[in-house]
Amino acid sequence: MIKKNMITTSLALMGVVAVGSAHADEGQWQPHQLKQLQSEFDRVGIELPASQVADLNQYPLNAVVGLGYCSASFVSPKGLAVTNHHCAYGAIQNNSTPENNLIEKGFLAADLSKELPAGPQERLYVTEQVDDVTERVLGNLPAELHGKARYEAIQANRKALISECESDPNYRCTVRDFHHGLEYFMIKQLMIKDVRLVYAPAEALGNFGGDIDNFEYPRHTADFTFVRGYVGKDGKPASYSEDNVPYEPVSFLKVNTSGVSLGDGVLVAGYPGRTSRYKLADEVNYSASWYYPTLLNTYNMTLDVIAKRNKGDEQAQVKYASRVKSTNNRLKKLEGLQDGFKVTDIPGIKAAQEQEYLAWFAQSAERKAYADSYHALKSLLVEAHAQQQSHFYFDYAKQADLLSTAIRLFRLAKESEKPNAEREMGYQERDLPMLKARLERLQKQFTPEVDKALWLSYLGNYLAQDKAAQVAALNNGLGITDTTTQAELDAIIASFYAKTDLTDTATRVSWIGKSVAEFEASNDPFIKLAVALYDTNMAQEADEKEMAGRLAEIRPQYMQAVIAFNTAKGKPVYPDANGTLRVSYAQVDGYPAADAVYKTPFTSLRGLVAKHTGEKPFVVTDKVLEAYKKQAFGAYYRGDLGLPGVSCSLFSFGCEPQAAKPLEVNSVPVNFLSSADTTGGNSGSPVMNGKGELVGLNFDSTYESITKDWYFNAKITRAIHVDIRYMLWLMEEVDNAGYLLDEMTLVK
Amino acid sequence: MIKKNMITTSLALMGVVAVGSAHADEGQWQPHQLKQLQSEFDRVGIELPASQVADLNQYPLNAVVGLGYCSASFVSPKGLAVTNHHCAYGAIQNNSTPENNLIEKGFLAADLSKELPAGPQERLYVTEQVDDVTERVLGNLPAELHGKARYEAIQANRKALISECESDPNYRCTVRDFHHGLEYFMIKQLMIKDVRLVYAPAEALGNFGGDIDNFEYPRHTADFTFVRGYVGKDGKPASYSEDNVPYEPVSFLKVNTSGVSLGDGVLVAGYPGRTSRYKLADEVNYSASWYYPTLLNTYNMTLDVIAKRNKGDEQAQVKYASRVKSTNNRLKKLEGLQDGFKVTDIPGIKAAQEQEYLAWFAQSAERKAYADSYHALKSLLVEAHAQQQSHFYFDYAKQADLLSTAIRLFRLAKESEKPNAEREMGYQERDLPMLKARLERLQKQFTPEVDKALWLSYLGNYLAQDKAAQVAALNNGLGITDTTTQAELDAIIASFYAKTDLTDTATRVSWIGKSVAEFEASNDPFIKLAVALYDTNMAQEADEKEMAGRLAEIRPQYMQAVIAFNTAKGKPVYPDANGTLRVSYAQVDGYPAADAVYKTPFTSLRGLVAKHTGEKPFVVTDKVLEAYKKQAFGAYYRGDLGLPGVSCSLFSFGCEPQAAKPLEVNSVPVNFLSSADTTGGNSGSPVMNGKGELVGLNFDSTYESITKDWYFNAKITRAIHVDIRYMLWLMEEVDNAGYLLDEMTLVK
Repeated sequence: MIKKNMITTSLALMGVVAVGSAHADEGQWQPHQLKQLQSEFDRVGIELPASQVADLNQYPLNAVVGLGYCSASFVSPKGLAVTNHHCAYGAIQNNSTPENNLIEKGFLAADLSKELPAGPQERLYVTEQVDDVTERVLGNLPAELHGKARYEAIQANRKALISECESDPNYRCTVRDFHHGLEYFMIKQLMIKDVRLVYAPAEALGNFGGDIDNFEYPRHTADFTFVRGYVGKDGKPASYSEDNVPYEPVSFLKVNTSGVSLGDGVLVAGYPGRTSRYKLADEVNYSASWYYPTLLNTYNMTLDVIAKRNKGDEQAQVKYASRVKSTNNRLKKLEGLQDGFKVTDIPGIKAAQEQEYLAWFAQSAERKAYADSYHALKSLLVEAHAQQQSHFYFDYAKQADLLSTAIRLFRLAKESEKPNAEREMGYQERDLPMLKARLERLQKQFTPEVDKALWLSYLGNYLAQDKAAQVAALNNGLGITDTTTQAELDAIIASFYAKTDLTDTATRVSWIGKSVAEFEASNDPFIKLAVALYDTNMAQEADEKEMAGRLAEIRPQYMQAVIAFNTAKGKPVYPDANGTLRVSYAQVDGYPAADAVYKTPFTSLRGLVAKHTGEKPFVVTDKVLEAYKKQAFGAYYRGDLGLPGVSCSLFSFGCEPQAAKPLEVNSVPVNFLSSADTTGGNSGSPVMNGKGELVGLNFDSTYESITKDWYFNAKITRAIHVDIRYMLWLMEEVDNAGYLLDEMTLVK
Repeated sequence: MIKKNMITTSLALMGVVAVGSAHADEGQWQPHQLKQLQSEFDRVGIELPASQVADLNQYPLNAVVGLGYCSASFVSPKGLAVTNHHCAYGAIQNNSTPENNLIEKGFLAADLSKELPAGPQERLYVTEQVDDVTERVLGNLPAELHGKARYEAIQANRKALISECESDPNYRCTVRDFHHGLEYFMIKQLMIKDVRLVYAPAEALGNFGGDIDNFEYPRHTADFTFVRGYVGKDGKPASYSEDNVPYEPVSFLKVNTSGVSLGDGVLVAGYPGRTSRYKLADEVNYSASWYYPTLLNTYNMTLDVIAKRNKGDEQAQVKYASRVKSTNNRLKKLEGLQDGFKVTDIPGIKAAQEQEYLAWFAQSAERKAYADSYHALKSLLVEAHAQQQSHFYFDYAKQADLLSTAIRLFRLAKESEKPNAEREMGYQERDLPMLKARLERLQKQFTPEVDKALWLSYLGNYLAQDKAAQVAALNNGLGITDTTTQAELDAIIASFYAKTDLTDTATRVSWIGKSVAEFEASNDPFIKLAVALYDTNMAQEADEKEMAGRLAEIRPQYMQAVIAFNTAKGKPVYPDANGTLRVSYAQVDGYPAADAVYKTPFTSLRGLVAKHTGEKPFVVTDKVLEAYKKQAFGAYYRGDLGLPGVSCSLFSFGCEPQAAKPLEVNSVPVNFLSSADTTGGNSGSPVMNGKGELVGLNFDSTYESITKDWYFNAKITRAIHVDIRYMLWLMEEVDNAGYLLDEMTLVK
């Protein structure tokens, strides 16, 4: 349930008037904010009342769940849920062996008893309650509390709230800041701990296009997988047990088998991770000119080192596959940001907006504090950026897996000397299982050879800095001076790997719970270096907390100014994404991708088959090729998905048989675009039609949309969704998974 | 003027009824055929009466001219003509020096006196008369004449006609076969021999995108150049002389400064080179499975050898630049054909069509001869393809420049022993200037090192064949046996280049006019080899003529069958392209380029600037960048070129400021697409609006259109044109060439 105080705050933030049309479909709205957006629902064609969608405890939001860093939704009364293939990848991988490679073959459980445990870390999170806890987090802070002290007081309040809420072990609770600390909400989520794999298409289809098509459109990916939540016989969350029974969700989404057409209104609900829509022009400029290019170089270096070391070593390649994939993903995102900045002058747009704010602030003496907050933030950012720059290469120089592991373990020993409630977040009792899992997982994702090579290259960057930018504790800990040669450094680093025992998983794990004294007495070179770096790390962290505390004071003031401006113009303000449940309303739509190139909103089975080369990642399975050849489209054949009587005449001059129809599908629709406002974390989000019925799954964004984390350009920002018709077609006509449809509520 | 007998024939060929809509905008029509296409003119929106456009001696066709292997049109009463930049490239190159690089800088003559001679080989050809000479070519052939004898009799008749027509030295006459020999027309063209360069944009603009963008769209190329025809003071064609005066054409095109919008009807007139629209499915299959892949390998090999040999040698690179460019162009065309065959099952379409023909032939005993012609052609093609395969590698093995030169020179000596009229075409008196020019040009386009390397690689392919497929005369002439090693072959070929004098231009030219005996007495290794190969070459040529003669008998019969079928269905039949003047009617239109990718028909200055990287071939000149920055669009700014009230609403749901408009230009239109039916040779063709006013220049086709030489797929086949608004904008706002507009007739 949503508590009263939240609604009051939101009304205050929002103003009351209808949204201006210029806003288009931008907005990752907190559910409760939707009540103010009925006119927008009407505009895009959402039939459900906005007030219904605003309610966490009503259909359809009560069927939307979180899944790790992804989103999902229940689609049957027996706990069947659907998410992206890439979100369930770990679960499929957990059940794969070289002899029975489920990733490659795909998986379909013949019945409930054959469903496979997704893995001990897999969770479904059902958001049951969202409370405004701003008062509990900020209300008791003395006005004179600034910087690090303020930061720590806020953290203490958050920890206390979480601890109180998690007294029921079936729940995970988080306290998130909204509007960069202007408000805090506590999110209470039921945690379903027994998740099982039900149906996943073959990777060839589920990840068709692979890294090459990542962030690209046209797209032809069956990025979906079905899982099922299980609970104990008492209906309460329980870890995996054969005796568990399917979870019965409060609600589940109806599935619309007809899908959508151009212009249809859609809702996308899920857990977007992070956006920077309210950051200043200066912050875009800093990122575009220094931070992104620097990161990009580091990623490229990382990939080069891994590729070079692992050449010809298939086992090592497997170990680093996931790191390579995620680094490539980040790299492409950075490239997309840089390309996007060339196309759209986002700093210019932001600067113009700031001038508009300033002009409005200047109109009244009462708004002076707003202007002050802007100028204060602007100057503080200069310091913040300088701090990030000064820490960057030192931070990277500690990112060898074994060194960062040693640092984390020693930190745990240090934190464990305090009472649990006072420990740094991440080192509390509740965090130990995750920490242990991480130490164990390293085994499968690491080789000393690559780790050493990466460390050397990160150290190379660090040592290329001026002496003044280097850190004595690190140089001394490594035993290097101004005259150390590269060959000597190579030998030093080699000796770290020769002498350490941390490469052994049991040894790594055994350090959990050891005392500070035991660490200080260790002869393991990585442990010794971690101990030697501790004071420096803590001093640096203190600086960062000081900065975080100062920002946590000023940014909310600035956000208050931004909200005041928008409220005066009748525009509600959604907070930047922060991993909490949000809703976006949108329309099915194409976009102009480049001069004279218009990308239309539907791809097709015809297009999928045309992309088949037989070479990964462009392999269409034989079963699909056969079904296509036989034109076995079942109920999912579509000719043209444009507006009747318009789309076939605009570009083609009459609907002659040979005329060019931009929205011709002539087979089964595979993926589609909408103007939904999404970001990382929205993977697996249900895409619903105007009645709240499932019509697809969100899984990616177009390359041109990558800059949307900074600025939502309504003209070109499009999210990419798997079409429900392709999912159902694969299930019915290809994979014999049609029986799963029996437990769903299908709407034709 | 068009003679009566031509019209009669054409009516017989055509039938009378309107063209079915399925035909869409296909057709490279002989002008006289247009009279039957008034309903098509009405459909696409051409206001000029079809009968007027059908008349060579009326506006606008009397302003359309040929220019080498390109097309052009007069645009002023003072002989100013406009063609593509790439068609005038040689003329610009002729006037360029390292110190005054007109290719790079572009050129604008300050006034008439500053116009530069384009070069001795540059010609403007004005088609003045087209006569049906079928009777003169075929009428006197005895029925028993077949094969080589028939081929030679036809050639003799053609030569006689040409010789008669060229008694006036101001004319060039050609006799071309239409419908593969069913008809012959003689084309009489006034030959303007003094052509001068007037205005060419900088290569950065005129060839923007270079080889990378060749055959690609979106495109942003200023592919236009202005030249002027000059004649003697008597108004008759004359070679370059300072005293010459501008040619006064009978007519010239009006220039429409407003350009076109989506859906407007356009006419494209010019000299398309060669198409294969009426070839059989078997011929497509043969080309797709053997001929094209084999050629493609050879082109790749050629490019590899040249690149490897010329690495680091800038002078050699310049010499081979044009060959590399044209080989790349052919390579891309072959790749496009192969890719196109994957997308469209052209053999399948053709086979289905042939079945339709056969069914129709079978409906009546009178049509038995039609069916016979089809089956006869089908079996003859098996032989023809086998012949081509058996000659292929031997032909390539003679394609070293020095060897082919020696072969050509010795052939000239042999032919010169006959009376002029009996000599092989290409070796008659009229051909000598061209032949000499070719021998001289070699100097600038050749190095012995590359020639040797190419010869060795071609010989490698030839020798990789079975012994039976090899040619004794060549193996003996080279002195190689079964046991010759690669090292020995290398030494043999090296000795050819060490001993020859043909590398010297004067020596090469001096062989023109020498006797057979002098050749036979020569010790030059290439001459000796040419002499040794002569009999084999002649025997092979005799085989080929035999095949040509047989095909020249059967193909026309099959074409008659095809025409009869179409006539019965009310469809006129245009002949395959053969380098003669043709007209295509079309509409401005985009096309679906791939699943979910629609290419819209206008590119823009905005898009040009966005493609600027500063690295060739993507360099926008500073002047253009400045003008764009200042938004100095003059009269040529366009916002949206779609259908009013439709295009901005279809994909964007209302015309909000931020909405996506597929046909937004928001600057100056640069290039545009139409459904015009064009091919190589149509470069420089005027694109005219419905009133016959110039609105652009044809210069390329899209990649997806490459297969149109075999089959015109109306859905995706698009020609790419330079927009008149970009040309005029560059002239007025960038290059100060606005004064040229004063001599044109501008229509707003």
